[in-house]
Amino acid sequence: MASSGEARFIDMMRALARDPAARALTDDVAVLPFGTETLVVTHDMMAQGVHWLAGQDEADIAWKLVATNLSDLAAKGARPVGVLIGYALGPDDARFAQGLREVLDTYDVPLLGGDTITPPAGGRSHGLTALGRATHVPVPARNGAHVGDSVWITGPVGAAMLGFEALRDHRSDIDTTAFRRPVPRLAEGIALAPLVTAMMDVSDGLLIDARRLAEASGVCIALESAAVPVPETLPPERLREALGWGDDYQLLFTLPPGVRPPIDAYAIGRVTESGPYSLLLDGAPPQGRLGYWHDRPNH
Amino acid sequence: MASSGEARFIDMMRALARDPAARALTDDVAVLPFGTETLVVTHDMMAQGVHWLAGQDEADIAWKLVATNLSDLAAKGARPVGVLIGYALGPDDARFAQGLREVLDTYDVPLLGGDTITPPAGGRSHGLTALGRATHVPVPARNGAHVGDSVWITGPVGAAMLGFEALRDHRSDIDTTAFRRPVPRLAEGIALAPLVTAMMDVSDGLLIDARRLAEASGVCIALESAAVPVPETLPPERLREALGWGDDYQLLFTLPPGVRPPIDAYAIGRVTESGPYSLLLDGAPPQGRLGYWHDRPNH
Repeated sequence: MASSGEARFIDMMRALARDPAARALTDDVAVLPFGTETLVVTHDMMAQGVHWLAGQDEADIAWKLVATNLSDLAAKGARPVGVLIGYALGPDDARFAQGLREVLDTYDVPLLGGDTITPPAGGRSHGLTALGRATHVPVPARNGAHVGDSVWITGPVGAAMLGFEALRDHRSDIDTTAFRRPVPRLAEGIALAPLVTAMMDVSDGLLIDARRLAEASGVCIALESAAVPVPETLPPERLREALGWGDDYQLLFTLPPGVRPPIDAYAIGRVTESGPYSLLLDGAPPQGRLGYWHDRPNH
Repeated sequence: MASSGEARFIDMMRALARDPAARALTDDVAVLPFGTETLVVTHDMMAQGVHWLAGQDEADIAWKLVATNLSDLAAKGARPVGVLIGYALGPDDARFAQGLREVLDTYDVPLLGGDTITPPAGGRSHGLTALGRATHVPVPARNGAHVGDSVWITGPVGAAMLGFEALRDHRSDIDTTAFRRPVPRLAEGIALAPLVTAMMDVSDGLLIDARRLAEASGVCIALESAAVPVPETLPPERLREALGWGDDYQLLFTLPPGVRPPIDAYAIGRVTESGPYSLLLDGAPPQGRLGYWHDRPNH
């Protein structure tokens, strides 16, 4: 959960972010008209002990740092134009550079610049800024869902949770790729951008992120848990847990009645009138953990 | 001096930064054609114990984080369009927010987004990304100085050194503003951009930065120490020290023969043929410290 200090700081930042490009710090990105085009930009940080496990492969840390920011661009249908990195030197800079090369080559994104620091004693954190070009204007936001829209997701949730646990428990018999090397849904985001009423990436957990989308739109989202895709290897009794776990970076989006997505996706619920709750799961407000709640201005 | 690990990492980054927009990571910024305009973007980090003193006013830390990045835009004649912040929560987030508001209001720059983290145990670091719009194309670079050009600086060096020492020594009789609240020379940079052959900001020390400009341009820069402006309060015997101290964020630039700057500035030397040395001070290669040398991809 967000510390009260963090929530207070973000409120102070909101008061500074009056420019419409900031989207009141409630979206994944900033959106700036720039010349004849529209720039989409996001900045995320990752900290040791918070976003990665001690001893994790540095190449995976680099991958995730870039991929999670590209996922924010994907959620806005933006095509990446480059990244800038803020890097704190660590135990294996060559492995980090190797992972950075792999993720940038995979998504054909140039490194444009950045900064390197000797980290303060005790802890490292890295930052990444991703710049993209909007492929569709208006750029999808979180706040456009309408009553009657259908709610969709691009793929399963829970794979990152299983991967995280396997990595933490040193289980070599379980595939940890989903946690270590998330996939930004760039092509899907571009295909969806002209059609969706609202879109975001699921970084912190399906339930928490669906509630954020509902609150931004002033509606209620009613999800059906049985419709949410999960990995075959997920034990059925862990479904509810998977719905409150993040890191899968699927796209969550809403479509007007009768519109079908042009890509593979799963219908998981409906947008209904705002009522006492902004999120329902199988007809009732979900109890317990909705997701990883580190409140962030943009993410 | 840069650790060998840092230098190696930056070399690895250079190999990834093949896009011309990255300027081979040898300039202050990345420069991207974007629609009908040109985007100028920079990212810098600041770490506790490296870039600020323990116990420093958090409002000053915020000011410096933003001002130093705006200075990079100034050095390219770019007009700021906004910033994204990566903030590690600390002992007085309200003071930090206050300083952020002051610097953004002073330079009329909107906050566009960012990220907040709970810092790893033991140390905080912040990142800032500044976006700007080029006011003149081609955007000034470090590598355009020609033999015969004159070398100029916008104002005194050494004031930040005196301010740093006073702050460190808890001297309340000495003005520490120059160290705590550097001024990005935005108007000067915009006025100079159409005229200069090369330009950069002096962040790490006049001597080291002049040598970087000379090396990027494949020339030698010959400076006259008596011509370099210093604060009235600088003891004369400390002139050489001031030339090797950074943090004043003046603009250093070269002009073709016969061209005068349209703003107040000081002629401090000449561009000469590249020889055994790329920097001369009063006719000889300077001995001792040239500046603060934390090698950075961009800064």
